[in-house]
Amino acid sequence: MQLLELSKFLAENGFANTIDGQTGVDIRAANTLEDAREGDISFLANPRYTNLLSETRASAVIVKNGEPTPKDLTVVRCDDPYGAITAAIIRVHGHRNHPQWGRDARAVIAESAEIGENANIGPNVTIAANVTAGRNAVIYPGCYIGDDVKIGDDVTLFPNVVIYDSCVLGHRVTIHSGSVIGHDGLGYAPVGGAWVKIPQAGRAVLEDDVEIGAGCAIDRATLGETRIGQGTKFSDAVVIGHGTKIGPHCMFVAQVGIAGSTKVGHHVTMAGQVGVCGHLTIGDNVRIGAKSGVHSNIENDAVYLGSPAIDSGEFKRQAYLVRRLPKLKQRLRDLEKEVAQLKENLDDTAAD
Amino acid sequence: MQLLELSKFLAENGFANTIDGQTGVDIRAANTLEDAREGDISFLANPRYTNLLSETRASAVIVKNGEPTPKDLTVVRCDDPYGAITAAIIRVHGHRNHPQWGRDARAVIAESAEIGENANIGPNVTIAANVTAGRNAVIYPGCYIGDDVKIGDDVTLFPNVVIYDSCVLGHRVTIHSGSVIGHDGLGYAPVGGAWVKIPQAGRAVLEDDVEIGAGCAIDRATLGETRIGQGTKFSDAVVIGHGTKIGPHCMFVAQVGIAGSTKVGHHVTMAGQVGVCGHLTIGDNVRIGAKSGVHSNIENDAVYLGSPAIDSGEFKRQAYLVRRLPKLKQRLRDLEKEVAQLKENLDDTAAD
Amino acid sequence: MQLLELSKFLAENGFANTIDGQTGVDIRAANTLEDAREGDISFLANPRYTNLLSETRASAVIVKNGEPTPKDLTVVRCDDPYGAITAAIIRVHGHRNHPQWGRDARAVIAESAEIGENANIGPNVTIAANVTAGRNAVIYPGCYIGDDVKIGDDVTLFPNVVIYDSCVLGHRVTIHSGSVIGHDGLGYAPVGGAWVKIPQAGRAVLEDDVEIGAGCAIDRATLGETRIGQGTKFSDAVVIGHGTKIGPHCMFVAQVGIAGSTKVGHHVTMAGQVGVCGHLTIGDNVRIGAKSGVHSNIENDAVYLGSPAIDSGEFKRQAYLVRRLPKLKQRLRDLEKEVAQLKENLDDTAAD
Repeated sequence: MQLLELSKFLAENGFANTIDGQTGVDIRAANTLEDAREGDISFLANPRYTNLLSETRASAVIVKNGEPTPKDLTVVRCDDPYGAITAAIIRVHGHRNHPQWGRDARAVIAESAEIGENANIGPNVTIAANVTAGRNAVIYPGCYIGDDVKIGDDVTLFPNVVIYDSCVLGHRVTIHSGSVIGHDGLGYAPVGGAWVKIPQAGRAVLEDDVEIGAGCAIDRATLGETRIGQGTKFSDAVVIGHGTKIGPHCMFVAQVGIAGSTKVGHHVTMAGQVGVCGHLTIGDNVRIGAKSGVHSNIENDAVYLGSPAIDSGEFKRQAYLVRRLPKLKQRLRDLEKEVAQLKENLDDTAAD
Repeated sequence: MQLLELSKFLAENGFANTIDGQTGVDIRAANTLEDAREGDISFLANPRYTNLLSETRASAVIVKNGEPTPKDLTVVRCDDPYGAITAAIIRVHGHRNHPQWGRDARAVIAESAEIGENANIGPNVTIAANVTAGRNAVIYPGCYIGDDVKIGDDVTLFPNVVIYDSCVLGHRVTIHSGSVIGHDGLGYAPVGGAWVKIPQAGRAVLEDDVEIGAGCAIDRATLGETRIGQGTKFSDAVVIGHGTKIGPHCMFVAQVGIAGSTKVGHHVTMAGQVGVCGHLTIGDNVRIGAKSGVHSNIENDAVYLGSPAIDSGEFKRQAYLVRRLPKLKQRLRDLEKEVAQLKENLDDTAAD
Repeated sequence: MQLLELSKFLAENGFANTIDGQTGVDIRAANTLEDAREGDISFLANPRYTNLLSETRASAVIVKNGEPTPKDLTVVRCDDPYGAITAAIIRVHGHRNHPQWGRDARAVIAESAEIGENANIGPNVTIAANVTAGRNAVIYPGCYIGDDVKIGDDVTLFPNVVIYDSCVLGHRVTIHSGSVIGHDGLGYAPVGGAWVKIPQAGRAVLEDDVEIGAGCAIDRATLGETRIGQGTKFSDAVVIGHGTKIGPHCMFVAQVGIAGSTKVGHHVTMAGQVGVCGHLTIGDNVRIGAKSGVHSNIENDAVYLGSPAIDSGEFKRQAYLVRRLPKLKQRLRDLEKEVAQLKENLDDTAAD
């Protein structure tokens, strides 16, 4: 595709733009400034990378209106380079083309399972009794879908995903490799110095448009439901305890862990390695910084940080003072000396 | 089952109780106060949820003797609502019914493997040479059991579990999906700026009644054994380093990581995301709070918190003082002013 | 093998040594001091375990020259017991013998795949279209290798490893069970309160001699490459974000997480549960202590600790002062009293 054509496509999709340079250059792929080669379109959205503009081998770069750029670099100027490159990637690369298996003869599908039209089911998949799945299911090799699982339309399960019995996946759910949905949580009662297992009789429900990264583990509820809200996205190795309910449109970065019976509102973001205790309520639009440990309820719209997590402004003040502790201690020591000196002087004065 | 019948069952199992309300109501399932519908029995054990009593649609609720309850709610009063609901769940729901495969023809079982009676082995399982397994093995699809592995009676491996060569699983061991037992730990010697692999010649042993969550990784020992003690339970994504030995009846919450060659006593609980360094000794009955980082040995019965982890009481005092740092700094500043003023006054007095 | 023979082998491999005791004892295995039995050779490298010398049942123990040892214990004295036991383990145990499947008929291999000579591919492996693999590939059951993946010589994939489409593995790469390479990272653009997926059009590249533990997740790049440098080793449950580049000869302990677009130099070590934010640059030879949270760039050769991570010396001073906070507070309180007393005295003096 020529750059001019891509420019028109972007304009039609809400990204008004002007080309400054060669409009006829061929665009065959999108890439980062650093890795780009001839034929690639790239972008500058983070000022951290401005210095790469002069080094990139990209054939064209999407930049913000007003950005100073090297004279011989072809650029596409617009108001939202990040939005524009997203649209450009979708246009140039499209989404992944899955291998086409149809219903592979080496998949093991129970007779009682009801699989919708246009299914694409790889070899070595196991689909157990009474499973129902909607249209266009893509189920890669090595997946296991347990008894009585219900699956919506347009669901994609990458290789080696496991869905335990009775769980529910909505429409357009995507789960990456190695993730496990609906296994037993840590439910035991202490009896005579040993742990007695409590049957985990609930299930896990993933609502429409949920995407789960690789190696995640979402426990089924002991009773009732563990639930991941519509449009929520998880990165890798995220762990959700039994009975926890996550609202819609949340985003959890890798290695987040939420204990059981906690409720999380909508549009909550948790950065990497955040941990949240059980039986808590986290409000809507909350943002929690990387590695925080949450031990208490959090109000709507709060920004939390630290372990135990507190308001991020307060955390930063505390962290600043901890860094200043050597100076505070020095001031205390100086003051002690001064007071000792004062006392001596006062004694002298009094003795006069 | 009618509530009266369930009440009798509970009484026979050590939970003396009285019904206050309709003894004839039908109980078909157990559920949380929030998710319960008609036909469900629920429970109140955590005072955090007391306010849900007036809203629940449960047909009956198990509560503590003396708990005030809404007039029109049928309740079962007893001394231990949590123990009673555990017994009720086991009675009403029972444990999971596994799919029945017998020895599925699509499982790949080495001729030299000796599998006990009543095995239930799914398709796409691989059992390598010289494996021995006891009675009633349940092995879901996608599991791999390496050469020379020894497995006891009544073991359940959920889909896609991997057991490396020469490892040992005791009786009644249960392992959830995606967990890996006995792979090589991080054993390398630095030679000339590169890492040279040290063969990991040991094995991993899981004693009787161990249950392992989803996505856990338990390294084999370099030499000798990594060992998980009898009745110990892990949640998800727990990682155990090579040569580490965990005692019996421990409970580790999700994302706990223990480095190599550490020894942990019996009845130790570690909350979520705890990390423990290598070559340490953790005593019996120790409790370690969420997200703690353990860098030193811990005595029996201690309660530890923080990173580096210290006695929890001491940690709480320190955390309190860190939160008070802005006030401490203000007090220091006030005192400095006061001393300066005093000094000036003293100089004046002296000058008089 | 007799001990004398092993001693000669060690000497020939650069570990000059002398036997103090029975040179004719049979050595059949290597083991730890604690677990060793008759026929085992053991070693003492960590002074923490010196007391085990008097209890071990090992037939011989490799110790440092000059180490005092029990009279009746056969020891092999040398300068580098850790290096010598590594060589001894390789000599006595060798590396793992894989099961031999040849190209198992139950593996599903696309016609367009080009697999080099001497391949050992287990049942229930799926190799998709246009995959190329070099010589001596060992691919255990349950692995999935996506379209267009390129694999070098002497690669070992343990059971249930997943390699997404278009990724690249160099020569001698080893990946343990359950790890996932090249899946989509957390790439979404916020549009009207929902998350719109950005196609992840890049790939992941593992250079020669990389070894990856169990349950790791290495995202593909949105654009360009995620790259793991030559000879780098990961333990379990390590997560690498999209577009991140790790240099050669690094070592990451379990549960390390690195966000996207970060660059890590060569010979960097990160201890367990370290987290690193995105878009950072970590220099060469950097060492980062367990559980640290890195929020800023780090210079070459630095040693960092804490969350937010800082120079380890500074961290230790701060941690010391935090532990001393109760005493600092007491000193402040004492000083306040003293100043109040002084003031009173001064007032008295002035009033005189």
